[in-house]
Amino acid sequence: MTMQITPEILQKLQNIVGTTFVFTDDETRNQYGHDETEDYVFPPSVVVKPASAQEISEIIKVANEYKIPVVPIGGRTGLSGGALSIHQGIGLSTDRLNKIIEIDEKNLQVITEPAVITQVLQDTVLEKSLFYPVDPSSRGSCFIGGNVAENAGGARAVKYGVTKDYVLNLEVVLPTGEIIWTGANTLKNSTGYNLTQLMVGSEGTLGIITKIVLKLLPKNSHNVLMLVPFYKAEQACEAVSAIFRAGIVPSALEFMERDAIDWAIKFIEGVNVDIKPEIQAHLLIEVDGNYPEILMLEAEKIMTVVEGFQIDEILFADTEDQKNALWRMRRGVAEAVKSNSVYKEEDTVVPRYELPTLLKGIKEIGDKYGFKSVCYGHAGDGNLHVNIIKADMTDDNWKTEVPKGIREIFELTVALKGTLSGEHGIGYVQKNFMDIAFSTLQLQLMKNIKQVFDPNNILNPGKIFPDNI
Amino acid sequence: MTMQITPEILQKLQNIVGTTFVFTDDETRNQYGHDETEDYVFPPSVVVKPASAQEISEIIKVANEYKIPVVPIGGRTGLSGGALSIHQGIGLSTDRLNKIIEIDEKNLQVITEPAVITQVLQDTVLEKSLFYPVDPSSRGSCFIGGNVAENAGGARAVKYGVTKDYVLNLEVVLPTGEIIWTGANTLKNSTGYNLTQLMVGSEGTLGIITKIVLKLLPKNSHNVLMLVPFYKAEQACEAVSAIFRAGIVPSALEFMERDAIDWAIKFIEGVNVDIKPEIQAHLLIEVDGNYPEILMLEAEKIMTVVEGFQIDEILFADTEDQKNALWRMRRGVAEAVKSNSVYKEEDTVVPRYELPTLLKGIKEIGDKYGFKSVCYGHAGDGNLHVNIIKADMTDDNWKTEVPKGIREIFELTVALKGTLSGEHGIGYVQKNFMDIAFSTLQLQLMKNIKQVFDPNNILNPGKIFPDNI
Repeated sequence: MTMQITPEILQKLQNIVGTTFVFTDDETRNQYGHDETEDYVFPPSVVVKPASAQEISEIIKVANEYKIPVVPIGGRTGLSGGALSIHQGIGLSTDRLNKIIEIDEKNLQVITEPAVITQVLQDTVLEKSLFYPVDPSSRGSCFIGGNVAENAGGARAVKYGVTKDYVLNLEVVLPTGEIIWTGANTLKNSTGYNLTQLMVGSEGTLGIITKIVLKLLPKNSHNVLMLVPFYKAEQACEAVSAIFRAGIVPSALEFMERDAIDWAIKFIEGVNVDIKPEIQAHLLIEVDGNYPEILMLEAEKIMTVVEGFQIDEILFADTEDQKNALWRMRRGVAEAVKSNSVYKEEDTVVPRYELPTLLKGIKEIGDKYGFKSVCYGHAGDGNLHVNIIKADMTDDNWKTEVPKGIREIFELTVALKGTLSGEHGIGYVQKNFMDIAFSTLQLQLMKNIKQVFDPNNILNPGKIFPDNI
Repeated sequence: MTMQITPEILQKLQNIVGTTFVFTDDETRNQYGHDETEDYVFPPSVVVKPASAQEISEIIKVANEYKIPVVPIGGRTGLSGGALSIHQGIGLSTDRLNKIIEIDEKNLQVITEPAVITQVLQDTVLEKSLFYPVDPSSRGSCFIGGNVAENAGGARAVKYGVTKDYVLNLEVVLPTGEIIWTGANTLKNSTGYNLTQLMVGSEGTLGIITKIVLKLLPKNSHNVLMLVPFYKAEQACEAVSAIFRAGIVPSALEFMERDAIDWAIKFIEGVNVDIKPEIQAHLLIEVDGNYPEILMLEAEKIMTVVEGFQIDEILFADTEDQKNALWRMRRGVAEAVKSNSVYKEEDTVVPRYELPTLLKGIKEIGDKYGFKSVCYGHAGDGNLHVNIIKADMTDDNWKTEVPKGIREIFELTVALKGTLSGEHGIGYVQKNFMDIAFSTLQLQLMKNIKQVFDPNNILNPGKIFPDNI
């Protein structure tokens, strides 16, 4: 599959998108050869930047003619290597499909192209008092198209759901070049198989998303944000389930181990939180709604629940500035960890009550294989990001022992009725762990679906499926 | 595909489920040969009642060996004929898989078998202060498994979503006999293709559902219910969109044309609503939550919105009895219409702002082809049930003109960015309209997915796909 892009093929691509939008220089190829997954770089042979679904369709037809791999490339913020051109070929950047086509205030919907930055989308609809709640930590740079491809989650998923819960309809270019809509612009749909939901989270292997119809909500006017320090990390995890059982659905419920918060405070400017040395973990808890007096009632209920555990004084964010600072700290954890050491990030997810067991198990597995981990994430969803830190581990152990440990961590998540990835996807880096979550039969079913859409296996090959399937 | 069930096959089925659970008598075959779809009866050649996924797996293997159609049969409340044994064969009743396996209060989940009646499931989890919001009008008799197979909706979908939004994981017997789980018991999942969502709404054509893991919510303690009479039906439809644009998300927003409510009042005991002759339609509006004072505020906001239209006095349901009476009336509309005349029911759905245009169009199409329609449904979702009434129409016109009219109604819904079915499914009766919503390419993609799961096309053949695909 790593065939050369001949001058003939290059010419065809130039004819489709124009000479100025075909790039073969090293700088551009390297730029589009990585996302945020560890330190991987897999440059495509050529980067093309089409302007429309029609141009993408024509590119795909060329790719099928010559059997060249095509990798859709969005905001390059992915954490599982979905956008890496591991077999070279055509790196298809969606950069130029970057318009919000229509904000439909009458139906509370937005129709957008894929290369709109998620936060730009959120801010733009907010100007019309509308709310797109899905809020990945990378929202300042990730593309909404990538969010759909990976079924992105984020901090508000606990109350509002993940990307899949907002996608009503998609225009996609199929791996065979045809352009289709997957469904209808309706809130309900029982009309044939759900191609929309099949496309969401398929990581650019079943089609290239060119238009997205999203459901919006009326905006909420108020929220309350609090930071709760726990003396024991496992108790912080236990409190998560207890809050829900008290009948409260917070709009965010984030867990951060001590190291995560320490590193983030050092890394992010303008965050001043004074933490006692004995504190092992924090929960960042938000409730939102339109009635401040109700939010205070709910905050009090949450206080009553967490006071049943060993906690230090709760910090309430009194101003917008304080709220922003706390959120910047939480969102900055991943980058802070990255700046601190070589690392690997796993995106474990379990039913939320199993979080304390998962956390304890991860630490024991780390001890067994000699690695340290920093854990944080969307605890309200049972979604724990596990950052495995290289620090002063030898290169040998990093290469041989850590993968064994990761395998055991995933085996534990699956034993707890969880799975490998809550919101980052499988992509390139987790594909050889898929046998833990699925039998060969299940993987073969998925692979056969892939075959239905992509008979020549040209679209993002070598992702999701283990090498031996 | 209508091959005879030989004594040899019968013996094999008896060996699997036991002699007492294999039925070839006319009474049982007729009983399992219909659902609630018009007056169709298609009895299977034999009815079997397995007790477990394992037994279903063995039945499926026999069916593959002899290439016999298998139709999964649930509560037989379907409205698109999904459970009709149109090619005879084996009618596989799920009746005996009727246990709620576990209410997981720690994770707010329930694991259930498919033949639990939806209302029984709701009442049982409510005893633990948990809430399963999906609320089809047939909840007193439909099975939760059928809800999953059809992606059922109902009155609360407008705030809480439809069945697909609650299904976390499914155990299914594949059409090739293997038993798999489709996903994990987690709130988020970005691990491979979404087989769970592919199975939801696939109308018993991709697998037989044997276990369902559903997400639950903490229960709400209060609600306010009001009935708003409109002098003009189209204005009632316009008010629907206006309520959302005022920033309110009601927990139910139901539309009923005058005839629907009149017939329901006559049909249902204990409903006393006095309606002026000039009233053309009603909206039944509910808001729910935990704080009565907030609900009153929201009800007032809704009043302000609807008072912008020509309405008569709003009726507030003051007691539980009054609320129950109004809901009985709304839920009874379908049966009331059915008892009144031969009819056909369409399940149109559009973006909600398009409702007035849809309603107007339906009436014009009815005038053109000479039929009367009674419309009602889940207006908050843009989901309008269109009951086409035979009344004194000739049999000839009923057979020739009405299908033309239905085709035009569906063409209108699709032109309005809607689709054929919001919650009833396509099944048997709508399959030959599928070309309106999908191109041949799209249908062929779906058909190829079917082929991946069911290479011998034994599971519920002749459903969803048009005869010419």
